[in-house]
Amino acid sequence: MTDSASTRASATAVAARTTGTVRVVGAGLLGASVGHALRAAGVDVVLDDTSPAQLRLAIDYGAGRAARDDDRPTLVVVAVPPDVTADVVARELAAHPGAVVTDVASVKLEPYLALRGRGVDLTRYIGSHPLAGRERGGAIAARSDLFVGRPWVVCRDEETSREDLALVEGLALDLGATPVEMTPEEHDRSVAVVSHVPQIVASVLAARLREAPDAALGLAGQGVRDTTRIAASAPELWVQILGANAGPVVDVLDALADDLRDVTEALRAPDAAGSRRAVADTIRRGNEGVERLPGKHGQNRRFEQVVVMVDDRPGQLGRLFGELGELEVNVEDLRLEHSPGAQFGLAEISVVPSAVGRAVEGLTERGWRIASTSNDG
Amino acid sequence: MTDSASTRASATAVAARTTGTVRVVGAGLLGASVGHALRAAGVDVVLDDTSPAQLRLAIDYGAGRAARDDDRPTLVVVAVPPDVTADVVARELAAHPGAVVTDVASVKLEPYLALRGRGVDLTRYIGSHPLAGRERGGAIAARSDLFVGRPWVVCRDEETSREDLALVEGLALDLGATPVEMTPEEHDRSVAVVSHVPQIVASVLAARLREAPDAALGLAGQGVRDTTRIAASAPELWVQILGANAGPVVDVLDALADDLRDVTEALRAPDAAGSRRAVADTIRRGNEGVERLPGKHGQNRRFEQVVVMVDDRPGQLGRLFGELGELEVNVEDLRLEHSPGAQFGLAEISVVPSAVGRAVEGLTERGWRIASTSNDG
Repeated sequence: MTDSASTRASATAVAARTTGTVRVVGAGLLGASVGHALRAAGVDVVLDDTSPAQLRLAIDYGAGRAARDDDRPTLVVVAVPPDVTADVVARELAAHPGAVVTDVASVKLEPYLALRGRGVDLTRYIGSHPLAGRERGGAIAARSDLFVGRPWVVCRDEETSREDLALVEGLALDLGATPVEMTPEEHDRSVAVVSHVPQIVASVLAARLREAPDAALGLAGQGVRDTTRIAASAPELWVQILGANAGPVVDVLDALADDLRDVTEALRAPDAAGSRRAVADTIRRGNEGVERLPGKHGQNRRFEQVVVMVDDRPGQLGRLFGELGELEVNVEDLRLEHSPGAQFGLAEISVVPSAVGRAVEGLTERGWRIASTSNDG
Repeated sequence: MTDSASTRASATAVAARTTGTVRVVGAGLLGASVGHALRAAGVDVVLDDTSPAQLRLAIDYGAGRAARDDDRPTLVVVAVPPDVTADVVARELAAHPGAVVTDVASVKLEPYLALRGRGVDLTRYIGSHPLAGRERGGAIAARSDLFVGRPWVVCRDEETSREDLALVEGLALDLGATPVEMTPEEHDRSVAVVSHVPQIVASVLAARLREAPDAALGLAGQGVRDTTRIAASAPELWVQILGANAGPVVDVLDALADDLRDVTEALRAPDAAGSRRAVADTIRRGNEGVERLPGKHGQNRRFEQVVVMVDDRPGQLGRLFGELGELEVNVEDLRLEHSPGAQFGLAEISVVPSAVGRAVEGLTERGWRIASTSNDG
């Protein structure tokens, strides 16, 4: 922790924006990570959790201290599952009349409407959603750096005071995240398309592998692995998330089902006039969509890939990156592909186009085998 | 090439199985790569292509020599787009009565039926499909190692002689690939589920990003990137592939559409009895499907991830892997995640569970910041 604190201090050269005590309710992956990060910044963190075991673990790991009756938190972070977020927010608003209360739920409108429906005064409530972490984890997986560089959505409304908003955005900044202001509706529509529907799609695609013969699975390459990777997510959490964002998710699913139906009908009559055009349009629209995803540093830059064969021995990847460093080639992105049945991997490194020649020549001179180069996208 | 040849010789300690001249028709990514690989093994390779420029490029790059009237190939590899594969196979069977003819098309039944329909004697034809390469490339992207470790499907039927089958499987082995025998029907159903439908799904999912506001795209994480990565594929080639495998693809799409409809209807009425159960089942079936994908070395092993923060400077990844090598931690898989707006990356390395402790302690001692650890899947 000390190392993180001193590193953070030297990196930012300012004290934590968050002052006073922060009370974190829910000591799982997100809550405990918030605790770790704030403690690294010198902030007093109180932890609470309905599970005494989870609470004990988080405290022992250094994410914060146990609650005391004389605690007067300035900020309460409710880090509980979406189903119970509204309940706990209401309780905390009542228990700590001097505190701003925020949360971390993956959906923002439902908790807000649930609270409004109960007549809770929401002046001191500001919804948050840090887009960080993995859906599995618990306190044992918590780390102080979980939020660094990630977007942190903050939902303001006309009741939100400037000071309270600054408090929550200061929390995000102290955690190394980038605050992004949105309305709850905007947020929910956004995560529907960039997170919730991809989850559903990966799951229904992966479900097709259940019926597939072993021999078919033996032909699997990186394409099916990438498209189904997130199908490993935990059902319990996703049932809550999807149920709470059902409207926006269904809107996207309906549009997707239309496109799927169009290409399916075209393939049901592949020789019919217009079929090939319909299939080509499907692929082309996908090209356009994926090009809109921002690249590193938020830019939409094109990179080229250089694929290098790497023996399956410890140290080989180290040598590769050491030599790339000597060649002054910055690795923008990396994917390591393992070959079923072979004792080696293919390291696909993404570099700016101007570095490709230098990388290929330099690596080849040093005895590396370049498997292929290709344009990004 | 010399280095590859000597390495291959030392690696296998046997001469190439392929003897005589191999004629490769189509000098694009696959054909030129076959040429490079065979030449590295000391085999005489003849190249041909309808494009004089592509042919010249492939020859200049060393993938083979120009055709001569006195060529008597023992094997012909037809490496042309799926639409023209049957035509070229028929032509080559007639032009080289002493040769076995194979191809590389991504679909196997349609070319076979087209040839049968024309009354072509298929005794000397054996369909192949090497599952390798990238859909974009051309001769300039060709490499001798393209097929190493990859499955190479070989379609035999009752007419296939043992000697001819050995010739084609010998070709696959000389290229470093693993021959897998299947019927054309089995092959097409297999690639429908592990390749063709994932392509379509990625495309229709990515198409949703066209309508998404920039702010929504700013929240994109690794999940949507992974599920849409292959949506960057080239339309022209995929129109041919999907059109030629329409039947099996539609079967899988219909089953997928049913699942998608079930979860969509459940979400349309999220509070109805059974809705949560239906959504949970969707995620759970996806869990089961993705667990069936084989891991490295063809085993279905579980790995654990250690996520390490890596500064965005050349040489940092090199240092990391060098130190992992010193710790004798083998990197089973690697994913580098870039953080939008931040000057660093998160290197998610997969290791065997028994190496996690050693990796985390060792790296932490050496000053690395571990972002999180989590179980695979």
